Amino acid sequence: MTQVSGAIIFAMIMALAGIAFVLWQLRRVLAYEQGNETMQSIAAAIQEGAAAFLNREYRILSIFVAVVAVIITTFLQWQTAFCFVLGAIASAGAGYLGMYVAVRANLRTAEAARHSLHQGLRVAFGSGSIMGMSVVSFSLLGMTGLYLFFKGDPNSLTYITGFGFGASSIALFARVGGGIYTKAADVGADLVGKVEQGIPEDDPRNPAVIADNVGDNVGDVAGMGADLFESYSGSIIAAATLGAALGVDAFIALPFLIAAVGVIASLFGIFIVIGEKHDHETTQSSPTTTGEKIILFFKNQVANIDEEASLKDLLEALRRSVWMASAAVLVLALLMVLISGISINYWLVILVGLIAGNAIAHVTEYYTSYTEKPTLSIADATETGAATTIIQGLAVGMMSTVFPVLIVAVAILISIWLGFKADGTLAAGLYSVALSGVGMLSTLGVTLATDAYGPVADNAGGIAEMSHLPPEVRQRTDALDSLGNTTAATGKGFAIGSAVLTALALLAAYVTAAKVEHLNLLDPTMLPGILIGAMMPYLFSAMTMMAVGKAAHAIVLEVRRQFKEIPGLMEGTAKPDYKSCVGISTEGALREMILPGTLAVVVPLLTGFILGKEALAGLLIGTTASGFLLAVMMANAGGAWDNAKKWIETGQFGGKGSDAHKAAVVGDTVGDPFKDTSGPSLNILIKLMSIVSLVFASAFGSGWLSF
Amino acid sequence: MTQVSGAIIFAMIMALAGIAFVLWQLRRVLAYEQGNETMQSIAAAIQEGAAAFLNREYRILSIFVAVVAVIITTFLQWQTAFCFVLGAIASAGAGYLGMYVAVRANLRTAEAARHSLHQGLRVAFGSGSIMGMSVVSFSLLGMTGLYLFFKGDPNSLTYITGFGFGASSIALFARVGGGIYTKAADVGADLVGKVEQGIPEDDPRNPAVIADNVGDNVGDVAGMGADLFESYSGSIIAAATLGAALGVDAFIALPFLIAAVGVIASLFGIFIVIGEKHDHETTQSSPTTTGEKIILFFKNQVANIDEEASLKDLLEALRRSVWMASAAVLVLALLMVLISGISINYWLVILVGLIAGNAIAHVTEYYTSYTEKPTLSIADATETGAATTIIQGLAVGMMSTVFPVLIVAVAILISIWLGFKADGTLAAGLYSVALSGVGMLSTLGVTLATDAYGPVADNAGGIAEMSHLPPEVRQRTDALDSLGNTTAATGKGFAIGSAVLTALALLAAYVTAAKVEHLNLLDPTMLPGILIGAMMPYLFSAMTMMAVGKAAHAIVLEVRRQFKEIPGLMEGTAKPDYKSCVGISTEGALREMILPGTLAVVVPLLTGFILGKEALAGLLIGTTASGFLLAVMMANAGGAWDNAKKWIETGQFGGKGSDAHKAAVVGDTVGDPFKDTSGPSLNILIKLMSIVSLVFASAFGSGWLSF
Repeated sequence: MTQVSGAIIFAMIMALAGIAFVLWQLRRVLAYEQGNETMQSIAAAIQEGAAAFLNREYRILSIFVAVVAVIITTFLQWQTAFCFVLGAIASAGAGYLGMYVAVRANLRTAEAARHSLHQGLRVAFGSGSIMGMSVVSFSLLGMTGLYLFFKGDPNSLTYITGFGFGASSIALFARVGGGIYTKAADVGADLVGKVEQGIPEDDPRNPAVIADNVGDNVGDVAGMGADLFESYSGSIIAAATLGAALGVDAFIALPFLIAAVGVIASLFGIFIVIGEKHDHETTQSSPTTTGEKIILFFKNQVANIDEEASLKDLLEALRRSVWMASAAVLVLALLMVLISGISINYWLVILVGLIAGNAIAHVTEYYTSYTEKPTLSIADATETGAATTIIQGLAVGMMSTVFPVLIVAVAILISIWLGFKADGTLAAGLYSVALSGVGMLSTLGVTLATDAYGPVADNAGGIAEMSHLPPEVRQRTDALDSLGNTTAATGKGFAIGSAVLTALALLAAYVTAAKVEHLNLLDPTMLPGILIGAMMPYLFSAMTMMAVGKAAHAIVLEVRRQFKEIPGLMEGTAKPDYKSCVGISTEGALREMILPGTLAVVVPLLTGFILGKEALAGLLIGTTASGFLLAVMMANAGGAWDNAKKWIETGQFGGKGSDAHKAAVVGDTVGDPFKDTSGPSLNILIKLMSIVSLVFASAFGSGWLSF
Repeated sequence: MTQVSGAIIFAMIMALAGIAFVLWQLRRVLAYEQGNETMQSIAAAIQEGAAAFLNREYRILSIFVAVVAVIITTFLQWQTAFCFVLGAIASAGAGYLGMYVAVRANLRTAEAARHSLHQGLRVAFGSGSIMGMSVVSFSLLGMTGLYLFFKGDPNSLTYITGFGFGASSIALFARVGGGIYTKAADVGADLVGKVEQGIPEDDPRNPAVIADNVGDNVGDVAGMGADLFESYSGSIIAAATLGAALGVDAFIALPFLIAAVGVIASLFGIFIVIGEKHDHETTQSSPTTTGEKIILFFKNQVANIDEEASLKDLLEALRRSVWMASAAVLVLALLMVLISGISINYWLVILVGLIAGNAIAHVTEYYTSYTEKPTLSIADATETGAATTIIQGLAVGMMSTVFPVLIVAVAILISIWLGFKADGTLAAGLYSVALSGVGMLSTLGVTLATDAYGPVADNAGGIAEMSHLPPEVRQRTDALDSLGNTTAATGKGFAIGSAVLTALALLAAYVTAAKVEHLNLLDPTMLPGILIGAMMPYLFSAMTMMAVGKAAHAIVLEVRRQFKEIPGLMEGTAKPDYKSCVGISTEGALREMILPGTLAVVVPLLTGFILGKEALAGLLIGTTASGFLLAVMMANAGGAWDNAKKWIETGQFGGKGSDAHKAAVVGDTVGDPFKDTSGPSLNILIKLMSIVSLVFASAFGSGWLSF
């Protein structure tokens, strides 16, 4: 068995182990108590809404996938199309599973929160861990399976780029469509419910309340999952492609090995949070192997969290889970590098990626947390009105780009340097950049879990509110929700950072695959390519922001109509028509994403064919740089506005209802599409454009306009 | 006499002709009546404030210039330092003259508006034309004078890059410092005056009213003038440098020749607006030469505007002046290209530049005018509150980047293609890009005049208000002001477009001068360079936006103090202390610009020395692309918010005082630092970083971090 085959099979086994965990955890989460009938009926409505969205989305998606598959078969070959379809199915499957459990874990979390904070967290996080582990397992299983399927074919890796493209297509629908859905429903529900009718948030009389709850899952579970599925697959594909170009088997094997040990490390991390003190399910085996000894070590960590754990303990547990997983990856990756017989530098590269990811997450938390100066400066600005709130928020958002950029720039520099020192070629340096991306995402199983549990807690709170559970339950779900907001902020930083590294790695893979001989910055078509590329994120953001406005407007009209036409709705004697709002959000989101989505696919293709493959490289670098900055700015400004409002709601500057609060609400409302629609959508844009270019790399020439 | 010397001397003569016009026009404007005593006392306060700002600014500037001159002498040579100082003096001189006449033309415009709209325009535009012609004449005289001074020295053009750097330094102070000044004073005056005390705008009881009026001139006259002085000088220097690298004398000569005929064309254009029906001063000579026949043709154009001209007639006259000047440049440039004996393609390149400049201006007008859909969509959004107003404005701003980018991209493509076809080298193509920048700016004398007259009209309105002139006078000055707003919007588009072309031309000149052999996009240090470069505009904008907030806060405190401590101020029996507000704005603006200004100079130097000259090229392209987009977005969003508010003030959506109007005011307030501080400052950032790199090109190596 060759080195590569060995690594692939090992990765495949780990992927299967991940899937086993997912199934076990699924059974475990679904076994929790579901609470009373009211809770179940509300949850049923959310489940129905989520299913309606996914079904409609996947129906449109299947048409899209079929069309693109035909195009790929026509222009390239059936194998790539096959991988494309499989990538789409794998990502959609992970998203479906994540959503499926999330909309079933919400009421169970609410019910569990009756007992204790920790019990609530365990259910919600369990649901998150299913999303996290599905993403990494499905991705890894898909890629390794395809590799074995095409074994012996020298172009196997080229075909597998199609898998990444398929994943990207799903990400586009899930992240962009989902982002529009969630904010349209949110804004629509708030504008009529809170502002016009004066009823509280999550009030069951609001016809858009179910759509709003569905939206949390659509955007933050399925959307985030698909986004990171794409990054995860893309970074591994890019690294393997660049490794293959270097002609060294160990280089192809390494990204798969890192991903494989990442699965183990992520599982360790997950158990830190969900493990119970005397958990019979996981302590059956006695600690004989090294792996089990490590499990025991981690289980001792778990033992420190008892049922009466405070919020701070739990945040610490979440943090420890990520840190411990990172430590585990590093130990295991060192082993892999040593076994592979390649330079230790490549282990350092993985370290660089992990540090960079966590550093970006940390910076994101600093800029968006209301215990820190930036967000507090926005809170101060609310005292002089909405305008200064907006200006300060935008300035904070812009300022917050500095460190993420420096971190990524330094990570690239060090990675290239390490690779260059190890093998003396620039190609090895670029391979290292891709590898550091793989390193950054190696613990994705657990980092995504810390992120994807947030919406479950949020939903749990909504259900607790709507079914009038005792106040301490709502307090606990609120606590879990606020914990989720903190981890969601860092998750967004992570998503952006990994998107940039993945996009750059894909760019390098594209340049290799397209056989771009010289890539002179002053080539005739390069400057126009860069400028147009830098413009794409602006166009994309403008479209997605306007899309939210349009879709929200449709919701507002429908909610108003229902309040007017359904007698007894306001008094609580009649039930609103939740479905129509879900339907409108779904229709609107999917309709509005078509144009931006098409642009993201068509512009690189047009650039490649008309301006040539060099200009396309320029386009990609322009989009990546500009999109990175805009995405960070929007995500952090949005997060900071959100938390500035929350800070005021704790009673500062007059608290709720004060003029300062009104100004803060304006900031928060502007920030909503920033942080939940347009900003995250840019992650997809930069990766999708890169992977489209990589897939079609062989088809581009010097361009019709070449001279 | 060589071809180059001939061209230089011709350009110098034209520069002197421009200066002669300036002096004549200065005498003419100052000869207009000054109105009553109240008007004169208000104007005197504005003059004093403006002088105070300029004096303080120039004092700090002279220290800055001295320090940099020493650094240049140390690292490079005294000749470059000499040119640097001269460039600073020339730009500062043009700015001083423009301000000097602007703060004297304001009351004369108010007085002239008693007679007719056209008479008012004639005075205000006369003042603007002094700014416009000073800029082009001083720049051209400085560069040609230095060329003759260093004649015979093979490095003469290298030295003259210092002139551009000097001009850039002034631009930094004038545009960034001026931008902070004007908005701090504006916001400070409004927040206490309009909002807290409920007194109207331009009320003499407001202690910050003079600072506000000074600010209009500081930002829009001196700032805009210095910005375009820099573009004008930079594009000519870049073109001549690239021309010299091609080793063809005609290529060095051409940019000077185009600039020279641009002076003539601009004068023609100016006379279309300021000419009078029976203007003895300019019809003395009988039309014998071709030039005079052309003058007669243009004078016939003038004859169409009579004293009773409506606003529409005047707007048409302003437009005609620019179009006619462009036509004249094209005719004369064709002559120059034919005489030079080079390919006609280079004439087409100039045509491309002119078309691109006007096309960008047109797009800018479309996106910011309240007769068009984008701005009206913002007005619609005001109905649902401040948040949707902001979101829609940002979306419009982002959307408005598409066409400017495409226009510039296509202009670059065509220019490079034309140059490449003419001489078969990429270098000739890059030379063409620089030349199209020269073409775009060739009519600067008149385009700047249409822009710089706006603040004079604005000030005239303020004076009319404060000195209680009859309502029809205020109506006329308001009409002139709104005309000025239209032309100012297009002027901003022009400034950005030319800044980008200039920066790219300077980048090409830098690459040539630094002898960067290969400029591979995937070089180890290139990607970090591009990312950091793309981040710079965000950092710079964040700093300038926050600077406005800080400086405005200081003004607010001072105005509040005066209202509290000066008895009888509110009743109009006591006079406020205007000077202290002027002083605070001045101090604040100059203090707050130090850090961003230093960054703009230091970052390229550090990048060049640490990461090497290739990374520096990446940095520049990153900053230019990202800065271009952010600048267009900010300028157009700001302009659109401003006009959406004005549209509502015409009575739409409930007019002034309605909820829609309140939301629109929030948009306008956010837009103020966007369009008048941060956006325009980015023009300076991208050019300054490029010219610093060009000046120090010979000092950079492969970087301390090279491997």
